[in-house]
Amino acid sequence: MPTLERHDEVFVLDLGDTENRFHPDWLAEVDGLLDEVERAEGPRALVTAATGKFFSNGLDLDWLSTHGDRASEYVVSVHELFARVLSLPMITVAALQGHTFAAGAMLSLAHDFRVMRADRGFWCLPEADINIPFTPGMSALIQARLSPQTAHESMTTARRYGGQDALAAGIVDRAAGEEAVRETALEIARSLAAKAGPTLGTIKSRMYVPALNALRDKDNPFG
Amino acid sequence: MPTLERHDEVFVLDLGDTENRFHPDWLAEVDGLLDEVERAEGPRALVTAATGKFFSNGLDLDWLSTHGDRASEYVVSVHELFARVLSLPMITVAALQGHTFAAGAMLSLAHDFRVMRADRGFWCLPEADINIPFTPGMSALIQARLSPQTAHESMTTARRYGGQDALAAGIVDRAAGEEAVRETALEIARSLAAKAGPTLGTIKSRMYVPALNALRDKDNPFG
Amino acid sequence: MPTLERHDEVFVLDLGDTENRFHPDWLAEVDGLLDEVERAEGPRALVTAATGKFFSNGLDLDWLSTHGDRASEYVVSVHELFARVLSLPMITVAALQGHTFAAGAMLSLAHDFRVMRADRGFWCLPEADINIPFTPGMSALIQARLSPQTAHESMTTARRYGGQDALAAGIVDRAAGEEAVRETALEIARSLAAKAGPTLGTIKSRMYVPALNALRDKDNPFG
Repeated sequence: MPTLERHDEVFVLDLGDTENRFHPDWLAEVDGLLDEVERAEGPRALVTAATGKFFSNGLDLDWLSTHGDRASEYVVSVHELFARVLSLPMITVAALQGHTFAAGAMLSLAHDFRVMRADRGFWCLPEADINIPFTPGMSALIQARLSPQTAHESMTTARRYGGQDALAAGIVDRAAGEEAVRETALEIARSLAAKAGPTLGTIKSRMYVPALNALRDKDNPFG
Repeated sequence: MPTLERHDEVFVLDLGDTENRFHPDWLAEVDGLLDEVERAEGPRALVTAATGKFFSNGLDLDWLSTHGDRASEYVVSVHELFARVLSLPMITVAALQGHTFAAGAMLSLAHDFRVMRADRGFWCLPEADINIPFTPGMSALIQARLSPQTAHESMTTARRYGGQDALAAGIVDRAAGEEAVRETALEIARSLAAKAGPTLGTIKSRMYVPALNALRDKDNPFG
Repeated sequence: MPTLERHDEVFVLDLGDTENRFHPDWLAEVDGLLDEVERAEGPRALVTAATGKFFSNGLDLDWLSTHGDRASEYVVSVHELFARVLSLPMITVAALQGHTFAAGAMLSLAHDFRVMRADRGFWCLPEADINIPFTPGMSALIQARLSPQTAHESMTTARRYGGQDALAAGIVDRAAGEEAVRETALEIARSLAAKAGPTLGTIKSRMYVPALNALRDKDNPFG
């Protein structure tokens, strides 16, 4: 289960030490921890990290396969998480120490910056392989954060990007050794904690109006 | 005239061995060959190539100069070709062995990937020089596929990009020797033939909603 | 105060030798000089330059602090300047010999190309630091001209980019020694003067429809 720690001005949200798939309970937990981060005042920043082999593998397809009647409501809640992180009024950094797949990769893109382990682990959007098209909201999020060339390749080919590949493609902002991933993310977060505040929230919200509108379309999450 | 061959899972559409301008008969021919590609089932991919000095020089301005009354209908049919290739439910690769100009360059951008001859031939959008502004649909297509910096330079200056320049600008994905252009495109296509299917079609259609809408606006193709 | 000189086919607009903030009188002066540039005929291009330590520091916050009641009208006039330069029917090059901050940086992005001094001076969007969120029009302009990664970093972190940093991030097209900044801009402008004309104006206007619409929204400049 996700946990939250505070190191001076930086909150560290640890997504867990499993595949960290988005089970509804996990989503509720993360949402509650983000409430705590938002309620805090003054300079602060968020690092989202995880422990073990996975940052996150995204949607909980096992749960979904037995709760098909709740698919729409479930996707709405995932979209809400993306929209919330994308517009958080503080700097956010994802520390990708392990595999970052599908909705896990999209969650990483909702952060301001990404640090990825250089020597192991993949960032990948496997949707074209697993026959789950991106929702319009997901598509808008990914395309808003990546260059046209990278968005196209990653979304149509399910390419698995190692850390150096992801850096070259502009998917992540830094690649680092295993031990340095979280520390590098913390450094970036600390150095930008003073930016927190409603102005930054407004800046991000205005930058991503189309993506946020698509992600917040609760009536029609599948387009 | 265009021809179609199949090499295992890869269809090769050869645009011809002339300037390969978009005469209405040529457009109808290409459309029919794409029908054949779409009707096929299972893993498959498309390589669009040509023979000789030109990939394509784009609109058939000679024909257009004597059929001004059909300009609107003609541009609609060119837009339809772009929209069709842009949303084809399989991986598409353009093998640019020769000059790729104007609407020929736009057709190349409607493909998923581009391989360009490294040592000879230019990719160029000469519209600013020949006093033919991009239609809104063309503009949307080009801007959806290129970085803002490259789209701006290529659209406002009519710069002729050699293979290495085009690679550096992110216009093409690979530059290769003359002999290797088509083979490189075939390799990319073969390696991604398994992605073919309606999911990939949906992914592309959702990624390019604004460009596809502009290209499919039959009432007002000139904006 | 701004001045205008003509060197053969190239107009040089010098923004001044102070901080070159956008006082209403300065805006009116620049607008009048741009009228002169637009009225000219035949091949021509525009270089926007300045003298001294600053290209421009942007909005005149001193004036604004004593004219709060005219804030809306003032921002509309700044938006109009951006929209006008962004759609000018000739090639425009900004020669950034000194600090280029906030709305000064946005003005530079409204030009087709930017040449920046390599060894000194910063290009910076400090809005996140000074608690002035970008208006929707400003946000649209910046995001239309920069890659998603660069737009995000520059808009959320107030990073100060030196010339080489700005070149690497694709903010400017060239970095040059102090003495060479203006000459490099003049060379680019001269080489592209023949592109001037209504076709180029239409091309730019169609490329930037969303940004131009946001910048020309006089009823609601603050979103």
